[in-house]
Amino acid sequence: MKKPSTVTIREVSPRDGLQGETAEIDTEGKIELVNLLASAGFPRINVTSFASPKAVPRLADAADVVAGVIRRPGLELDASVPNLRGAERALEADVDTLVVFVAASDEANLRNVRRTTEESMVESEAVIRLARASGKNAVGTVSLAFGSPYGDEVTDDTVVALADRFVAAGATGLSLGDTTGEANPQAVFDLVSRLRAEYPDVELALHLHDTRGLALANVLAGMQAGARHFDGAIGGIGGSPFTKDSSGNLATEDLVYMCATMGIETGVDLAALPSINAFLETRLGHPLPGRLGQFMRGSEAASA
Amino acid sequence: MKKPSTVTIREVSPRDGLQGETAEIDTEGKIELVNLLASAGFPRINVTSFASPKAVPRLADAADVVAGVIRRPGLELDASVPNLRGAERALEADVDTLVVFVAASDEANLRNVRRTTEESMVESEAVIRLARASGKNAVGTVSLAFGSPYGDEVTDDTVVALADRFVAAGATGLSLGDTTGEANPQAVFDLVSRLRAEYPDVELALHLHDTRGLALANVLAGMQAGARHFDGAIGGIGGSPFTKDSSGNLATEDLVYMCATMGIETGVDLAALPSINAFLETRLGHPLPGRLGQFMRGSEAASA
Repeated sequence: MKKPSTVTIREVSPRDGLQGETAEIDTEGKIELVNLLASAGFPRINVTSFASPKAVPRLADAADVVAGVIRRPGLELDASVPNLRGAERALEADVDTLVVFVAASDEANLRNVRRTTEESMVESEAVIRLARASGKNAVGTVSLAFGSPYGDEVTDDTVVALADRFVAAGATGLSLGDTTGEANPQAVFDLVSRLRAEYPDVELALHLHDTRGLALANVLAGMQAGARHFDGAIGGIGGSPFTKDSSGNLATEDLVYMCATMGIETGVDLAALPSINAFLETRLGHPLPGRLGQFMRGSEAASA
Repeated sequence: MKKPSTVTIREVSPRDGLQGETAEIDTEGKIELVNLLASAGFPRINVTSFASPKAVPRLADAADVVAGVIRRPGLELDASVPNLRGAERALEADVDTLVVFVAASDEANLRNVRRTTEESMVESEAVIRLARASGKNAVGTVSLAFGSPYGDEVTDDTVVALADRFVAAGATGLSLGDTTGEANPQAVFDLVSRLRAEYPDVELALHLHDTRGLALANVLAGMQAGARHFDGAIGGIGGSPFTKDSSGNLATEDLVYMCATMGIETGVDLAALPSINAFLETRLGHPLPGRLGQFMRGSEAASA
């Protein structure tokens, strides 16, 4: 079977994971989480978002979180950046990578940030240019790349046109977000194949949600089409708004475990993940949805 | 991406699914479940097991269940058969297919049925010959085909040697059981490829459990290696003994949904599954573990 020898896993629980949670974790807790993830071997971590502190008070500590993280050699810290003001703050905080977002669905973009996709793209292009001029990496994310829950059609052509804009602005990486778990293996294979052919030198990441249980099958299809970068969140946190039981992000444990069993190097220590899962469960005050995380913790308890 | 145009899904909730449940469903309820599944379009259903009524009292109604099911054209009813006495009862009940089992792990075989794998194989061969002589199909299942939880090594050679015996005895089908969710996509691809090459004319089924969340990725790898027959249980019932939250069988909803989104024909009506999920939840008295089943029922309720 065609498969890569190594893949890069980016841990998104500190930002994407926590943003969907009711419970808030204090600045010290966020720093501890990022340091735990780095200790477990994750080479990239989505640390925070430089959103407006007025709009999202719980992210007002973005710079403090970045400042508190131990900067190990080889560790790449990235931050989500919604606009130029956020980009300036992210650069001041000295993150390694700035991540911008546009939705492939205009309707979703309007609902999320009260701007059209085009308006968000124009601001994203400016952020990418600023990041690159400052010697930083810039990743352009197309969210809802595999379909929109609002009924408007998302085609591969739409996604590729947005990716073209990101790359033209200087993006070092592209990310395809399946924000509401609409992707299937065939769709992932087709879109990844097309983008890999068009931009063989731009990193292409998959940010998959497990809403319908397809995330790992989608990872496998993505690997076969040439993707080498995958996002995950410990315990699958970052839930969908549709139902409290639907998990959100692909659980990092599942991703690391599948790679490990297939002989694909990730650099992540699977055995270190149950304690991070336990840390988050304690801080968030509820069991995390990911099945393997629960299984691993159960097995650990049983063998203790 | 290499994929089949059609696959056959076998529904195992009436037998494999229910056997792990505390709550018991009465004979009428079991018949209703099988008829609901057949109405939804499942072409094959694992209806019951002709185990000894003394050893497993809740399966004493096996013949009554089979007798109560509406026999639609094209519907293949199969029953698990642990020994020759069970085979005689299954033939009397006029099931279409007799399914026998051996574990690839001697240790597991001893624990499950207090016989060595060789002893079970000898009895299975006799059952297969009897079934074929009676004009029925016979499927030989190798359980724990991808690893044993008891620490003893299971190699592909072990599995292939057992499959050879089944085929030599006249089996019309082979099934690889990943009873404790040990499989990974690479292992599935390798073993399925080998068996497909050796026995291109024998149906090869995958019976996957989702203990570690890999079941759908394993289905995808199996499809790519040539498997066209897959088992599922509504809502993922048939839980693992390790933890109450770990789901057991691959949830049928997940399997049907993935095929549907990939344009792979199954003949199953996805929209009919939430009501069967609800039926089982009511009868079993607890929510079923499968995530998509919950999601679909939530969406249905939200749009009602």
